[in-house]
Amino acid sequence: VSALVMQGRDPRTGEVVGDPLAETTPEELDAVLDAAARTASMLRATSPGERAAWLRAVAAAVDAAAPELISLAEAETGLPQPRLTGEVTRTTNQLELFARVLEEGSFLEATIDHADPAAQPPYPDLRRVLEPLGTVLVFTASNFPFAFSVAGGDTASALAAGCPVIVKSHPGHPGLSVRTGQIVADALAGAGAPGGSFAVVHGVDTGVAAITDRRIRAGSFTGSLAGGRALHELAAGRPDPIPFYGELGSLNPVLVTQAAVARRGGDIAKDYVASFTLGTGQFCTKPGLLLLPRGHGLEAALTDAADAVLPAPMLGSRIHQSFISGVEALAGRTELRPLRAPSVVDRPGSWAGAALFATTAAEVLAAPEQLLEECFGPVSLVVEYDSLEQAVAIVRSLGGSLTATLHAEDEDLAETVTALTDVAGRLVWNGWPTGVAVGWATHHGGPWPATTDPLHTSVGASALRRFLKPVAYQSVPDRLLPAALRDDNPLRLPRRVDGVLVLGQGE
Amino acid sequence: VSALVMQGRDPRTGEVVGDPLAETTPEELDAVLDAAARTASMLRATSPGERAAWLRAVAAAVDAAAPELISLAEAETGLPQPRLTGEVTRTTNQLELFARVLEEGSFLEATIDHADPAAQPPYPDLRRVLEPLGTVLVFTASNFPFAFSVAGGDTASALAAGCPVIVKSHPGHPGLSVRTGQIVADALAGAGAPGGSFAVVHGVDTGVAAITDRRIRAGSFTGSLAGGRALHELAAGRPDPIPFYGELGSLNPVLVTQAAVARRGGDIAKDYVASFTLGTGQFCTKPGLLLLPRGHGLEAALTDAADAVLPAPMLGSRIHQSFISGVEALAGRTELRPLRAPSVVDRPGSWAGAALFATTAAEVLAAPEQLLEECFGPVSLVVEYDSLEQAVAIVRSLGGSLTATLHAEDEDLAETVTALTDVAGRLVWNGWPTGVAVGWATHHGGPWPATTDPLHTSVGASALRRFLKPVAYQSVPDRLLPAALRDDNPLRLPRRVDGVLVLGQGE
Repeated sequence: VSALVMQGRDPRTGEVVGDPLAETTPEELDAVLDAAARTASMLRATSPGERAAWLRAVAAAVDAAAPELISLAEAETGLPQPRLTGEVTRTTNQLELFARVLEEGSFLEATIDHADPAAQPPYPDLRRVLEPLGTVLVFTASNFPFAFSVAGGDTASALAAGCPVIVKSHPGHPGLSVRTGQIVADALAGAGAPGGSFAVVHGVDTGVAAITDRRIRAGSFTGSLAGGRALHELAAGRPDPIPFYGELGSLNPVLVTQAAVARRGGDIAKDYVASFTLGTGQFCTKPGLLLLPRGHGLEAALTDAADAVLPAPMLGSRIHQSFISGVEALAGRTELRPLRAPSVVDRPGSWAGAALFATTAAEVLAAPEQLLEECFGPVSLVVEYDSLEQAVAIVRSLGGSLTATLHAEDEDLAETVTALTDVAGRLVWNGWPTGVAVGWATHHGGPWPATTDPLHTSVGASALRRFLKPVAYQSVPDRLLPAALRDDNPLRLPRRVDGVLVLGQGE
Repeated sequence: VSALVMQGRDPRTGEVVGDPLAETTPEELDAVLDAAARTASMLRATSPGERAAWLRAVAAAVDAAAPELISLAEAETGLPQPRLTGEVTRTTNQLELFARVLEEGSFLEATIDHADPAAQPPYPDLRRVLEPLGTVLVFTASNFPFAFSVAGGDTASALAAGCPVIVKSHPGHPGLSVRTGQIVADALAGAGAPGGSFAVVHGVDTGVAAITDRRIRAGSFTGSLAGGRALHELAAGRPDPIPFYGELGSLNPVLVTQAAVARRGGDIAKDYVASFTLGTGQFCTKPGLLLLPRGHGLEAALTDAADAVLPAPMLGSRIHQSFISGVEALAGRTELRPLRAPSVVDRPGSWAGAALFATTAAEVLAAPEQLLEECFGPVSLVVEYDSLEQAVAIVRSLGGSLTATLHAEDEDLAETVTALTDVAGRLVWNGWPTGVAVGWATHHGGPWPATTDPLHTSVGASALRRFLKPVAYQSVPDRLLPAALRDDNPLRLPRRVDGVLVLGQGE
């Protein structure tokens, strides 16, 4: 029996890139899982400051290797150099952000209730802190070969939390995954992280075996609804269910008011097309639905803008095939009117052109599931609405999204804002959802199907909360408490003491 | 077709208590779900201070009705008056704690990143806050007819979060559930809460129908492993999976060192028996496993203490039957040696006596799942260990627990503490796990099977985090932002502004 192999291909040409890569064998996976499990308690014993230094070492190593990595990524994903260069910066900025989160220390939620022997019943000394969950399995994404891949946000946040990380590589960029994995592993080792802290594994079966293995304590995933749902159910169906954080599909509706159309309709049409075709429509924040007031008069502007979009390579042949069959299915629907019909790009590789359809609010409301399924790629749907209430009803019929965008002027839109934020994790005002700022206030999540767990974000400072669990210590002597909870506050953490938030300098 | 009915019974006698109660019909449930869904956006628009007033009104009403409620509870659960009186106080203290959490405001995690147009790429104004998930379905417990029931911690924390609550009553105390429900609903209405904020429903089928209904956005549960697992899988298997927080089974190991045995072995033996038989062993924190060093010499003390425990009524006939068959199964195992053999209490009702078994570490490690299944009721297992490493290995083989208890002197136990807190949500030092202090530092949770989600607690200030989701606002005008995020900080919240924690008085 020969090992299964993965092979990188250039989506611009369909040509083979690099050497075939063998999938991880069950024996290799077992060794990786064992090493991670052995490392978990060592990682738990490290200080946030130590882990901050590791993350900075990884960032420096990725920056230093950027030219080599970008060249590998370009060949395997077809993404253009400027985009990849920006993505590397975002990835290393993300590592730096988590280093700062670790140094600031609030993420530990250190809480001290002193004993109150006079209370009825007597209250014991009780102290609570967040501690790492254990080994995290990270499923990487095709569309961000850096920021949501081997050295991406899930890896950074899980390492920041103090969890060993096992990355399941994406078959769309196997060579880049291996090379990035070496760079990350070397940087971690050079900075003093224990050996089992990080590994990369390969293959679909490997991922399935790992997510159901007792040694894995949490999973994270960015990708398709079908794949994410299957992994979510595997994680929930284990003899010992574990947390699973999937970021899946999102339609990212854009609602434009009458006043906004009147004032700047032409720009909105042009910018909308730019947003849904950015990166060949392969962003989880791609706007898939444009809601315009009846009589908006923007069809020509939308069509002109879509006609001007040049074909571009998609990330790989599987994504390309899904896109082709998705737009063909849309084109076959009598209730949809093509503003720009899908076109077959007759050249080797995975090239795709833009497509844009129009329909009425009534048609959408009659069968929302069928019309509004996310189609990954440069395709979008324009819907005319009769009232804001109707527009909001359409948005509600979609299920959850990562984002909802509102283009408006100075109307009273309080109810609309509330309705949109009921179903979307981020509300964008007079801007575009493609482009996720990575900071303290970031939320990249939302109700199903945007994610499997609406409480969490996969991007931004709070992403490491996914990999931490509370532990309470009752009447435990100071010498046996974790540093975060000791009386003298050696980590200089912000802590809650007897209900009061105290900033950073001990009690 | 006649409606299904539930009937309260006095576990002390087996006699009927009160009138039969019809299960909620599908039509009634539909109306309740609709009312809650309509109310969700109204609740979301309320301020934390308004909700604090509602919780205090509920606490006052429960306190005022305490004599009536305690009398109902005593008849339906067989729990003694002093215990029930203490539980009412705990329940109203719990409501008061959440009122203070609301007033303090940190729970909103309000975060403001100001725009940085000079950044590459430019950083937008981004603001993040936690908002209510929507209607919560609360499954109540048999063993705390107040604190984990209609007016209990799940109801209090979900209302505090701003979520409508639908309580599924426990069939063990139907009359009490109905009456408490009326008192809570009246108190909420009197305090100005909208009508659909709260309801109580009845019946197993009703609970199953509700947990799979689109209008329910989260579930919480305290009860058996089998019941919790089934509901967890229903929640995960919905077309739109929702968060489900189940608190299930917990063995709560107690590890005693050689030094502790030498110094105060007799007291430990006596107090252990008192802890595992407290409330007739019907606490989720009941210690189910006592780990003693080989040659401990405490068997006689343990047996004497267990022999002195008087039979007491269990909560109901179903729990009683499970206990009887559970201890019979244990008694049939050749690898277990009875220190106190299970006895049948020959009187009407659900009376049970204490049982205690002993075995060796080797036997436990050979088949941990079979020997260590939680048996609800006054039964426990004593295991001799040869080394702390072996004792820790036994604890690790159990899966997760709500608590782990360490009785020790001044040995170096850093590694043992770490190992125990890997698998238990609360470490108790030289005390007993039965007794859960409710405060800011409380954690009542743990890895599977203690709970379905190790990130969360069902008791204490952070319990409302389960029912809140983040929302980010990008470049949204001040007038359309939620109050928590407005520039002038009208709620006087602690907020994180540009990465820095700022206490309470605006920017």
